Order: sequence, then C-alpha cells, then structure tokens
Amino acid sequence: MEFSQRISSLKPSAIREILKMPNDPDLISFAAGNPAPDSFPVSAMGRIAATIFESRAASALQYGVSEGYTPLRDITKKRMSEKYNILGENDDLIITSGGQQAIEMTAKIFLNEGDTVLCEDPSFVGALNAFRSYGANLVGIPMDDEGMDVEVLSQKLKTEKNVKIIYTIPTFQNPTGTTMSLERRKRILELAEEHDVIILEDSPYFELRFRGEDVPTIKSMDTNGRVVFSGSYSKILAPGIRVGFACADKNIINKLTVAKQVSDVHTNLFFQMLTTEYLDKFDVDAHIKKVCDMYRTKADKMIECMEREFSPKVRFTRPEGGLFISCTMPEGFDGAVLASRAKEHKVTIVPGCAFSADESKVCPTFRLNFSLPSLEEIEKGIGRLAKVLNEYVG
Amino acid sequence: MEFSQRISSLKPSAIREILKMPNDPDLISFAAGNPAPDSFPVSAMGRIAATIFESRAASALQYGVSEGYTPLRDITKKRMSEKYNILGENDDLIITSGGQQAIEMTAKIFLNEGDTVLCEDPSFVGALNAFRSYGANLVGIPMDDEGMDVEVLSQKLKTEKNVKIIYTIPTFQNPTGTTMSLERRKRILELAEEHDVIILEDSPYFELRFRGEDVPTIKSMDTNGRVVFSGSYSKILAPGIRVGFACADKNIINKLTVAKQVSDVHTNLFFQMLTTEYLDKFDVDAHIKKVCDMYRTKADKMIECMEREFSPKVRFTRPEGGLFISCTMPEGFDGAVLASRAKEHKVTIVPGCAFSADESKVCPTFRLNFSLPSLEEIEKGIGRLAKVLNEYVG
Repeated sequence: MEFSQRISSLKPSAIREILKMPNDPDLISFAAGNPAPDSFPVSAMGRIAATIFESRAASALQYGVSEGYTPLRDITKKRMSEKYNILGENDDLIITSGGQQAIEMTAKIFLNEGDTVLCEDPSFVGALNAFRSYGANLVGIPMDDEGMDVEVLSQKLKTEKNVKIIYTIPTFQNPTGTTMSLERRKRILELAEEHDVIILEDSPYFELRFRGEDVPTIKSMDTNGRVVFSGSYSKILAPGIRVGFACADKNIINKLTVAKQVSDVHTNLFFQMLTTEYLDKFDVDAHIKKVCDMYRTKADKMIECMEREFSPKVRFTRPEGGLFISCTMPEGFDGAVLASRAKEHKVTIVPGCAFSADESKVCPTFRLNFSLPSLEEIEKGIGRLAKVLNEYVG
Repeated sequence: MEFSQRISSLKPSAIREILKMPNDPDLISFAAGNPAPDSFPVSAMGRIAATIFESRAASALQYGVSEGYTPLRDITKKRMSEKYNILGENDDLIITSGGQQAIEMTAKIFLNEGDTVLCEDPSFVGALNAFRSYGANLVGIPMDDEGMDVEVLSQKLKTEKNVKIIYTIPTFQNPTGTTMSLERRKRILELAEEHDVIILEDSPYFELRFRGEDVPTIKSMDTNGRVVFSGSYSKILAPGIRVGFACADKNIINKLTVAKQVSDVHTNLFFQMLTTEYLDKFDVDAHIKKVCDMYRTKADKMIECMEREFSPKVRFTRPEGGLFISCTMPEGFDGAVLASRAKEHKVTIVPGCAFSADESKVCPTFRLNFSLPSLEEIEKGIGRLAKVLNEYVG
C-alpha cells in the first residue's frame, strides 16, 4: 500500500511548524494571505442569499454544469472583456472553485511527469505545490523590481528540458508585491511564442490597485491562445465562497471542463448565483474602490512604521496594490530564523524560503501581509517585529 | 503546445451527444442522477443561512482550513461512528467538495500512471473518468445480483499488474441499483488484505434505503486501514452545495489533505457551516426517512409501470434504495440505439455502455433514474419508452 510518486514528492514542509498559529488572542499575524473581513459586502450578500432561498432555492441547490453557471460565465466574460480586454474571439471562460483550482487543473491538463515549469523565484507556494503534485520539475527565475528576469528566462527556455508552462503572477506578485513592467510582459509573451510554451498568468490581485497606473495583462496581448488567465472573486468579494475562473482558448477551456467534471463536478451553485446577482445589481467597481482605499491606508501605515522602526539594513518593497510587502535582510541572514524568533514575540511572518522553487534554500527574505491586521495591530506588530529584527541583523 | 497524456486519454464520449438535453419542456428525463428538488430541506436551510449572515458572516466568508470546518468534521465523525461504526480509532475524516472530489483525490494520491483499478462493470462514469484522468488501467469485474463477482476479482488480482485500488459502490450501486451481500463484502476485504490493495468504498446512496435491511459497510469491517469510505451530503441534503467527505486511516487523510490544499484550498465554508447547523439543530434522520418514503413511492410506481408495459423480454433490477433501476434487453440489442430512439420520442435514458470500463463495448442495458421525475412523468415517460423498447426488442 504505497502512495503515488507524485504525492510522495510533496513533503510536509518545515515551515508549516513555524506557521502553525497558537490559539493566542494577543498574537498578531502578518503571515496570512487573507483579505480583510470588513471588506466583504456582507449585507448585500445576505440580502441576495435571502432572495435566492425565496425564489430559486430548488435550482440553486441542485446539480449544475461543470463549466459553471451560464449567467456568471457571461457577466464575468463581459466584465473581463470590456474592462481589461481579456477575452479574445477564440477564448472562453470556466468557473472554478477559487483561483487555486484553475492552477491545479492547468497543471493537470498540460504537465506530464518530469515536465518543467518556469516560475518566478520566489512565488506562490500553493501554485508551486500544485505543480509538484503532478511531478513537475520546478525551475525558479530570479526577479527584480520589474518582475521576472527575462534574460535568465530566455536562457532557461533553451537549456531546460520539456518546458511546458511559464507561471507568473505579474501584478502585485505574491510574495514580493512587485508588478511586472509592460516591456517584460511583452518579452515573456514573445519568448513563449518562440518556444511554444503556455503562460499561466495568475492574477488574483490585479483589481486591487491602490496607487499608480494599470499595466495591461499578458492575456490581453495574447493573439495565439497560449495564455491561461486565472482570476478570482476571493479578493474582491470573499474567499470562503471559493469562486474563481480561468479565461483561455476554447480548446484549453474544453480540457479544463473535462478536468473540472472529474474534480468536483461543479463549483457551489448557490454562491455562483449569488455572485452573479451581486455583479448584476450592485456596483462592484465602487466596492473594489472601497477595498483599495482600505488597503492603501493599511499598506501606508505598515510602510510608515517600517521606515520608522526597521534597521536601515533591511530593504522592502512598496507595492501599488495587492496584499503583501516583501522584506530583505542583508545576505547571510535567514528569514526562517527571524520567523521563529518573531513568533516567540507574538508576531507571525512567512520566511522567504516558503516561496522558493528550492525549499531548502536559505533566504534572507520574509513576507508581510497588510490586508488582514487592523491599523492598531499593524502599529503594534511592526513594533514587536522591529525589536526582534534589529537585534538579529545588528 | 500539447496536452498531457493523462488528459488526452479522456476522450469526449459519443454518449454525450445522446445525453445532451434539448431545451424542450415536454421531454421527460430518466437520464439524470439528480435527487428530487422537493426533497431539499429548503426552508430550514434558508433560516440557517439567514442566521449565519446575521451572526457569523465574516468567518463564514473567510478562508477556512483544508481538512474542513472542524465542527462539521466532528459531527460527521460522530454520526458515522455511532450509526454505522465507520470510523476506527486510527481513522480520520476530511470534508471534500462532493463525493466526486474524494474519488478524484484518492486516485491522485494512490495511482501512478498505468496502475490498475479493478471496478464493477458497469460502474459510475464520474469515478471511471477520474481514474482515467490519472492514466489508470481500468479492469471491469462482472456483477450479479449480489454485486461484484469475487471469483473473477480474485483471478484479476493475481493476473493484472500493479493493482492499487478496488473501486466499489456496494450499496444501491450506480447504475445497477444492486446491493452487495455481506458475504461478498467480507470476501472483497479479505482479498484486498491478501493482495495489499486499497478499497475505495463509494457510498453516496447508502442512507437512502427504502426497503429491506442495512448491510454493514466494508469500512466498518476494516481493521487494517485499507478502506477509503467516500460519503456525501448531496443525496440527503442537496448536491449543489458540493459537500462530501472521506473517512480513512489518518495517514491517508493526511495525504488527501495535501491534495485538497492544492486542489481548491477548502470546500465552500458557508455551506459547511450551514450543514453543521442543520445536523446539529434539525432531525436529519427524520428528514432522510421522508426522502426514502418519497423515493420508495417513485420506484414502486416506475416498477409497476415497467411490469405493465415493458416486453417480458426485458429484465430489470428491483433496488431497495438509491436512485436507479437498471434494465437488460436480450443479448445482441444495444442500449445506445434504444437511447437514441427514445430521445426522438422525448424520453431520455442512459445506455449501459456509458458505465463500462471499456466504453466501446456494445451493452444491451440501460439505466433509469426515478428520483427526479414526478409520479406523473414516470407514468407518461415509461409509456413512451415502452413503445420504443417493445418495437425494438420485438
């Protein structure tokens, strides 16, 4: 009775221990990836839920189709086309159980065991583990302030075997908070064309811009149907509902639909209907603006505290949106050591190694989340962290 | 840009065309696998939903943990232990996005490409496709009135290479409606022990018994942690909520949790809370009894009509529960031909070949669903079907 090779390669990571949150009300968490609960449009959602129970409960609770509730697909397509030019004429859209499922199913339909995925280093651990769960060979591409290093990417596309997917979070990247420049986006698309590989553009945060100008998505420049765009309602409505989507060429959406059918038949239908109704009857853009205002205030507060309290030896990103700030200590220091000490002082952070294609690497980095904690917690938590951090880096 | 081998082997089946439902209000469907919408406890669910929105919306809409909402896991464990003796002391339980996800993830954590799955022939196509989507070699084991033929099973365990899983729906099997005898259940468990393979006991219908005596689950006799039991709230509450579960040895549940994390992070949290509240505050056993009464009436009606109107050349099962009746025409006739002709006469059925490990096989069988249609539709639909059927078999 042995487990499959693919799942055996997914080892429980040492970082988990650090991340396990003691049940302590005094603990301040900068380690989460959660949106602020007071950003959820609770009263609107509650009212819509009541009307669905009154008027359409039987169909909302019955089986649905695997590609998703048609009105939700339509309204999402319309919004993504009109606002972001994301759907080309050969493209289609599938509703998924959160953005995570779009990533996992893209891995499933494209990767044979041993195929290579090129990803930003560091990157979102949930996606890296999805690739690992299909036996992928993960190769990290270093990043700078403009995103993935396209020179290294170009080299790796030549030297690595069986590259199938370039995985990127171009906007407000997790964990760095970095937004990839337009030039880089174009170059990555060119390189993907040249080497005939898929780009998985993971964009759960791209509508959460609280400063600066939008940069076009890679998908909006995709003319040959090689970009899979994964999006989510988790960060603009609520994550617990597990409603996300993928936009891609019709042939790819067909295969994702087959994968979806065997994965969970369809996404919770009640919340697909509720999301549709919200998008149809309420001003989602005004809501997103409110969320962005909230996150700008929190990010500014966090950066203000860090500037005041952190040792000047520690650098950090100044994101224009999203949920995260990434910090870098001088070379030789270890984010995992800091995370462990910080936890003793009742503040949690995620060490950089958690986001690496090579998890055993020692990284002088750590990630801070600013969306979940209150302004008060940010002030207090950065104070606690600064004490430990400044002692550590000397 | 090529798809993975595993997904390329999942071909869109010819049967799909037959199953595509024209949007015709006069069409009567016996092809579905849906529970009756008037069996959903809508008013109770609506009231619970309102209280969750009032009192706990922020946590119900936030991210949850991958193994599932703890109170739902606890109440499900308690119920499955006390009523059915399903959880042993080394066992644990994970909440899944419907029973389908329990099957897909079990395939993912156990199957290497090319590994063999022994399954009942015919069997549930959603499970067969989940196995196919991991490159499994499917080998069908014939069935009789007592379930899987254990002599053939014993042989195949000796002759087939790399058998990893025996997949069975022992109670009110899909599509046959057959319930496996206690003796066979014991024998299958013995054989699994002898050959060190996993049994995946898929039981979405086992609480829907409307006649006869319960037969113990295989899981309740499992002393060595080799049975994965997959269950579901789809058929006793509602399927659109996508809430199911798997019970198994703790080591298996740990691996399923890793797979769940990368698959969709967690199941819709709001409906996990709602289900918990329903189980806690309402009498679920009384509700299940009501559903069983409803289905007994429908099944009896369908069998009464079939006895009256079908040619005596056609045999059919008399299930003691579940959703399905299986019919067998004389050898040489083809369920797919009948399904296609029936559709022209505005009644849909599923041909037996759809449930075969070898989809190209010609089967003289077809499946009828009695839970979804009304008594009136059953009367009318069996009338239409009888006309086509009797003409076909002569």
